[in-house]
Amino acid sequence: MLIISDNLQITHPQIARAVKERDPGPIRQSVSAAAEAGADAIDINSGPLSKDPVETMRFLVTTIQTVTALPVLLDTANPVAMEAGLAASSSQAIINGFSLEPAKVEKILPLAVKYDVDIIGYLLMPDGHVPVLVEDRIAVALELYQQAQSAGLDEMRLIIDPIVAPVMWADGNQRNQDLLTIVRTLPALLGFSVRTVAGLSNLTTGRRPQKQKAVLEQVFLSMMAAAGLSMVLLNTDHSQTVATAKACRLLQSNKTFAWEDLDR
Amino acid sequence: MLIISDNLQITHPQIARAVKERDPGPIRQSVSAAAEAGADAIDINSGPLSKDPVETMRFLVTTIQTVTALPVLLDTANPVAMEAGLAASSSQAIINGFSLEPAKVEKILPLAVKYDVDIIGYLLMPDGHVPVLVEDRIAVALELYQQAQSAGLDEMRLIIDPIVAPVMWADGNQRNQDLLTIVRTLPALLGFSVRTVAGLSNLTTGRRPQKQKAVLEQVFLSMMAAAGLSMVLLNTDHSQTVATAKACRLLQSNKTFAWEDLDR
Repeated sequence: MLIISDNLQITHPQIARAVKERDPGPIRQSVSAAAEAGADAIDINSGPLSKDPVETMRFLVTTIQTVTALPVLLDTANPVAMEAGLAASSSQAIINGFSLEPAKVEKILPLAVKYDVDIIGYLLMPDGHVPVLVEDRIAVALELYQQAQSAGLDEMRLIIDPIVAPVMWADGNQRNQDLLTIVRTLPALLGFSVRTVAGLSNLTTGRRPQKQKAVLEQVFLSMMAAAGLSMVLLNTDHSQTVATAKACRLLQSNKTFAWEDLDR
Repeated sequence: MLIISDNLQITHPQIARAVKERDPGPIRQSVSAAAEAGADAIDINSGPLSKDPVETMRFLVTTIQTVTALPVLLDTANPVAMEAGLAASSSQAIINGFSLEPAKVEKILPLAVKYDVDIIGYLLMPDGHVPVLVEDRIAVALELYQQAQSAGLDEMRLIIDPIVAPVMWADGNQRNQDLLTIVRTLPALLGFSVRTVAGLSNLTTGRRPQKQKAVLEQVFLSMMAAAGLSMVLLNTDHSQTVATAKACRLLQSNKTFAWEDLDR
């Protein structure tokens, strides 16, 4: 299971300022800290970038590449910004992502084919809502796969994000138990070893003590890992959650156990 | 998932002394602490009790019952001690346990029928060894079930312990991944909602920093919970591991989430 840092978010005031002033310092610092903590990839959550999408995404990608060669996830709904990011990436890039929303299918999905990169497909309805029932979620996964096939995408480029539900939702527990079923069964349903990704921060939204959130994060991360999750987006400042991800990886490896590997 | 405290072990020097001197204090203290921490049951790991099995087991059970009404697991290979424990138990008792070893099938298993109590069956070969391959472990589970049926045990009284492997074993990771498969598939294989139990302390034997052990305990516990484990034996002094068990229970409940339930 790969660890993707979700720390670089344009909604963080210091990152927003850095982007506005084209100051590479805070961005480098965030990315270096994530890499040091054990991130295998960096999510660039740039938002829609309605202003200067090309210049801003290029600034973000090139700044990151001055401190790490880790793959980047381009996390924007703006196809112009997305293409600028893909063009600027010297390291591996991943499109994060598309859904069945017509604009995404028409403008974002084809970029994965054009640039021959991995792309994340969200299990969302065409109107952007989260489907409730497990059978609806699986139907969306099949439709995402069909759309990717129609666009000419190599199926091994597709990564499915089943969307973690906040525990606070009235049916959050049920949805997240269904998510485990989906992660476990998707490869057999789609007939190939399709990869899956999940955003862990979504689990515990709102203002609660970090200690209470942490145990839920760590438990649900372990459950998703056991179900076969390929990648997880998480806050790499949460050192115990990162340690959990590494322990999952170690326990799931076929290697003979070595304590030293816990810190890798 | 029920939490069973494995803290009461006769190999602990202060418990050994308390038993020898018939001093209820340390036993009461251990059991009260476990109950306070959140144990749903107390494992009495009395060892074989070659000397005074009846008096000693009776002393242990009655002492525990002065501080808690929680169910007790009678964890001894000695059928005489086992029967004394069953006779002394006013609360629910669970036999921990039997295996395909002829002495266990002949002397321990019939006690579950006689006293109409739950009994744990270990996935061990008749010679006491741990089977290596997943198919051998499943064959042992089927044989345990057959033996229980032959003895006249109500199938809902059977609880299977697939035996957690120490991570340090050369194939420990593989065995523990197989364990998850066994826990997940046993109900379908046996054709009824058979319960499962696992001893978590076995995962991280030896002298390592508690912090490194803790993350592995917590991760593997979460993985076993996701696979459907019914009960876990653990050290209730490990507060983060207990918190993990409670978080597993909460995330797997069909109830609407409430932060307050994390502490229950």
